[in-house]
Amino acid sequence: MTDDKLKQRALHYHEFPTPGKLALCLTKPTNSQDDLSLAYTPGVAEPVLAIAKNSDDVFRYTAKGNLVAVMTNGTAVLGLGNLGPLASKPVMEGKAVLFKRFADIDVFDIEIDADTVESFVDTARRIAPTFGGINLEDIKAPECFEIERALIEQLSIPVFHDDQHGTAIVIAAALLNALDIQGKTLANVQIVCIGAGAAGISSMRLLTGLGAKKSNMLLLDTQGVIHSARRDLNPYKMEFVRDTDKRTLADALVDADVFIGVAKPDLLTGDLLKSMAKRPVIFALSNPAPEIRPDLAHQCRDDLIIATGRSDYPNQVNNVLCFPYIFRGALDVRATCINEAMIIAAVEA
Amino acid sequence: MTDDKLKQRALHYHEFPTPGKLALCLTKPTNSQDDLSLAYTPGVAEPVLAIAKNSDDVFRYTAKGNLVAVMTNGTAVLGLGNLGPLASKPVMEGKAVLFKRFADIDVFDIEIDADTVESFVDTARRIAPTFGGINLEDIKAPECFEIERALIEQLSIPVFHDDQHGTAIVIAAALLNALDIQGKTLANVQIVCIGAGAAGISSMRLLTGLGAKKSNMLLLDTQGVIHSARRDLNPYKMEFVRDTDKRTLADALVDADVFIGVAKPDLLTGDLLKSMAKRPVIFALSNPAPEIRPDLAHQCRDDLIIATGRSDYPNQVNNVLCFPYIFRGALDVRATCINEAMIIAAVEA
Repeated sequence: MTDDKLKQRALHYHEFPTPGKLALCLTKPTNSQDDLSLAYTPGVAEPVLAIAKNSDDVFRYTAKGNLVAVMTNGTAVLGLGNLGPLASKPVMEGKAVLFKRFADIDVFDIEIDADTVESFVDTARRIAPTFGGINLEDIKAPECFEIERALIEQLSIPVFHDDQHGTAIVIAAALLNALDIQGKTLANVQIVCIGAGAAGISSMRLLTGLGAKKSNMLLLDTQGVIHSARRDLNPYKMEFVRDTDKRTLADALVDADVFIGVAKPDLLTGDLLKSMAKRPVIFALSNPAPEIRPDLAHQCRDDLIIATGRSDYPNQVNNVLCFPYIFRGALDVRATCINEAMIIAAVEA
Repeated sequence: MTDDKLKQRALHYHEFPTPGKLALCLTKPTNSQDDLSLAYTPGVAEPVLAIAKNSDDVFRYTAKGNLVAVMTNGTAVLGLGNLGPLASKPVMEGKAVLFKRFADIDVFDIEIDADTVESFVDTARRIAPTFGGINLEDIKAPECFEIERALIEQLSIPVFHDDQHGTAIVIAAALLNALDIQGKTLANVQIVCIGAGAAGISSMRLLTGLGAKKSNMLLLDTQGVIHSARRDLNPYKMEFVRDTDKRTLADALVDADVFIGVAKPDLLTGDLLKSMAKRPVIFALSNPAPEIRPDLAHQCRDDLIIATGRSDYPNQVNNVLCFPYIFRGALDVRATCINEAMIIAAVEA
């Protein structure tokens, strides 16, 4: 399919027959006066009084227990940048589609006009009584780390920043499998990750937790390799600083075993790919356009494994493979958070 | 139906087969990889870019244009008082049921943990990009007046406090009809309204706008008649202050033509009812239990017209008869507000 054709079909899909992808549906009969006298006044007073007496009853009598908020401020929409809350709505509705389709979880997408950590946290916290869980989405780093930490501290429902942990989980799980096929082990491979936002930082953290060595990792941001002579690093990037004279992606990739791209389209050229070690693993996860297209990669060498974030290429590494199920589990047991142990269990699942 | 039986049925209705009354449904095909590549990455980037370029396109490509937030802080839940956001959720879901059932409008119910005007307004404003309109619900007076005014000023989508205007519209419309049947006219009747919260104040305002005389109205709050010697009145009650020596509901009702109750159960006794003028109109609108039950009222005298807020008695005067349609109209023309002219048109519709 050509890009123009895809573009046209995507717009048509979103516009017709009704705008958007979501609607409300009613799970109870509402046809008679009698039905409505149960759903609304006078009958509705009974569950109200029950919940006022015992707040846990909100899970018995309302949809809260199966309802997740997908929240964003639109500061990091897909790989497209800070486009604001309105433009992020199709993505948030899309996320709702995936939650519903794969885990039968109901979602309200909530687009928040809040540029600061404080205003976002305050808004999310105040509307939290509505929901059984919160999935943070497309919020730029480093604010996303602070927002997630604050909400986890303040709320007793699961809060999960999918772009961090969802992506990290699927990258870790896929990398363990790919390395196995390539005859390599996590503790010994040289890993290059370009993109030091939510997904990059969180993935490197999780891989470290699973046995990868920081001394074998190079993290790059828009300024190049994150090295010890730089003075422009936030605390999250500082976790992965290396004492090295490598500066560019080209420097970093020589003899590297693993490329993880969570950055921008077309950063990985054929020449760079050829400079990597034998039997490399390429995760070109930028959306919608990957760091290298699979067909180009396969033209350059025949010993690689490549995955992208897209559902229309083979080997999809996308958090859709994770977040619906981790939330399904958390909601089913009414977990109050999603912790490190749950995340590692998800990698190994 | 006995009260116990109703209670039991209402709880069962809310709990089974799934908790609550709402779920999400998907309006687009999502069965194939191809469908998902349109709904989410890579296809979803196209509507995102379109909206980033032209914000009005959010109405073409997302559900925003048919989506209303039903928002509350739970400070005035039904006639039951300040029960907080969690306990209000069944009512907000019930409101969503009515919006969907009568006007095919999609609703997210949003329960907000915010006791102050400022925190409520700030939260509502920040999540407003999500919605095509906001219906405020079950917020206590006088905060509800300030919240509504601030949101109308700050937002360019319709904001409507249903407990005020929805109730006022149906009371005004029903009263015009009832007075016609009783052979009386609005300009000449003595009106007693008990309940000086959102519904009472707003209804008296609208009736005044339609020709009722303030000198023929007595408004009562929990302290009795609102008269000129009182020093405990907020500015909204001050609008209806009367220079009178009447103090109690019993004083007020002697020879009154119209009783409007938006207060508490059983305030209107048989003796009080008997003291009213010939051919009175009784609107006993407290929910779920009215100020007087219709069977008792009819036992006391045979020349009255009585209405309640309940769907299981005859003559329902409830804002369900109004709000779905006024929002349907506002959304269909993409109105930026719901103004006085639209409200008067609704009374006359």
